[in-house]
Amino acid sequence: MLSDSSVTTGGIYLEDLTTGDTFASGEHTVDVQQIREFARRFDPQPFHLDEDVARQTLFAGLAASGWQIAAITQKLLVQSVPLAGGLIVTDGKVTLPRPTRPGDVLHVVSTVIDIRPSKSKPDRGIVILQINTLNQEDESCLESVTRGLAFWRNSGIEPAFN
Amino acid sequence: MLSDSSVTTGGIYLEDLTTGDTFASGEHTVDVQQIREFARRFDPQPFHLDEDVARQTLFAGLAASGWQIAAITQKLLVQSVPLAGGLIVTDGKVTLPRPTRPGDVLHVVSTVIDIRPSKSKPDRGIVILQINTLNQEDESCLESVTRGLAFWRNSGIEPAFN
Repeated sequence: MLSDSSVTTGGIYLEDLTTGDTFASGEHTVDVQQIREFARRFDPQPFHLDEDVARQTLFAGLAASGWQIAAITQKLLVQSVPLAGGLIVTDGKVTLPRPTRPGDVLHVVSTVIDIRPSKSKPDRGIVILQINTLNQEDESCLESVTRGLAFWRNSGIEPAFN
Repeated sequence: MLSDSSVTTGGIYLEDLTTGDTFASGEHTVDVQQIREFARRFDPQPFHLDEDVARQTLFAGLAASGWQIAAITQKLLVQSVPLAGGLIVTDGKVTLPRPTRPGDVLHVVSTVIDIRPSKSKPDRGIVILQINTLNQEDESCLESVTRGLAFWRNSGIEPAFN
């Protein structure tokens, strides 16, 4: 949490979370090499691979694969939302409002928008996070509403295993 | 499309698509090295990195990052859904029903569930795909409803640029 480092160092349990809690990540700078390497492996389309061809496409220039931005978002979330037991996502809705370009510096702001203790599994609950991946101009490159698991302190889950 | 290779080789335009069309991908085998390499870069949590520690977590063994499965799904989609202009996803809802394990052989089946010509942009429309990433037992590892762009033949978009 932005203002409570004592919680983040020890691992966050379900009872530590309140709707409205906000987490801010560090930064990740995207460069041409990362974009092309990810694209070669997972999304081999010219607007992610070749600057010259990309200029003639809808993207009007080289743009990162949306799934690369999702993966970078996960990296920044793992560092900034230290849930006890880890950041275990069960599902999420992802929107890509604009392309991410070489040189963009991304950071993630995530906000707890709902907390739902499980009725069937008394050791855990679902935390719903509104996730926003922003560039250096604070323009939104990825938005997501993501459901993740959180555990009660008495669940036996280790406080900070990652 | 499963039964119409003449369309897939030339690039698919909006007028070639019909609700119910199905695309089947090739296969991708997931191994320990891929899981650990992706995790080190994007999702450094022990259940994606360390077999011994993973056994003691909720995953009960090494499991791939969900974002890795999303990226592999994109790779298989780019190969199997040859939309003219490329596979440009604007947003999607992703669910991860079960962990993907080392040795799992994934393939993707995608079905057109809706086609919405744009009212404001006469050269294109939105295609909504139901995407299912299955393992060798035909168990679902990732499900998604994804919105992508498709162009009319008279848009000037190149037929098969990737």
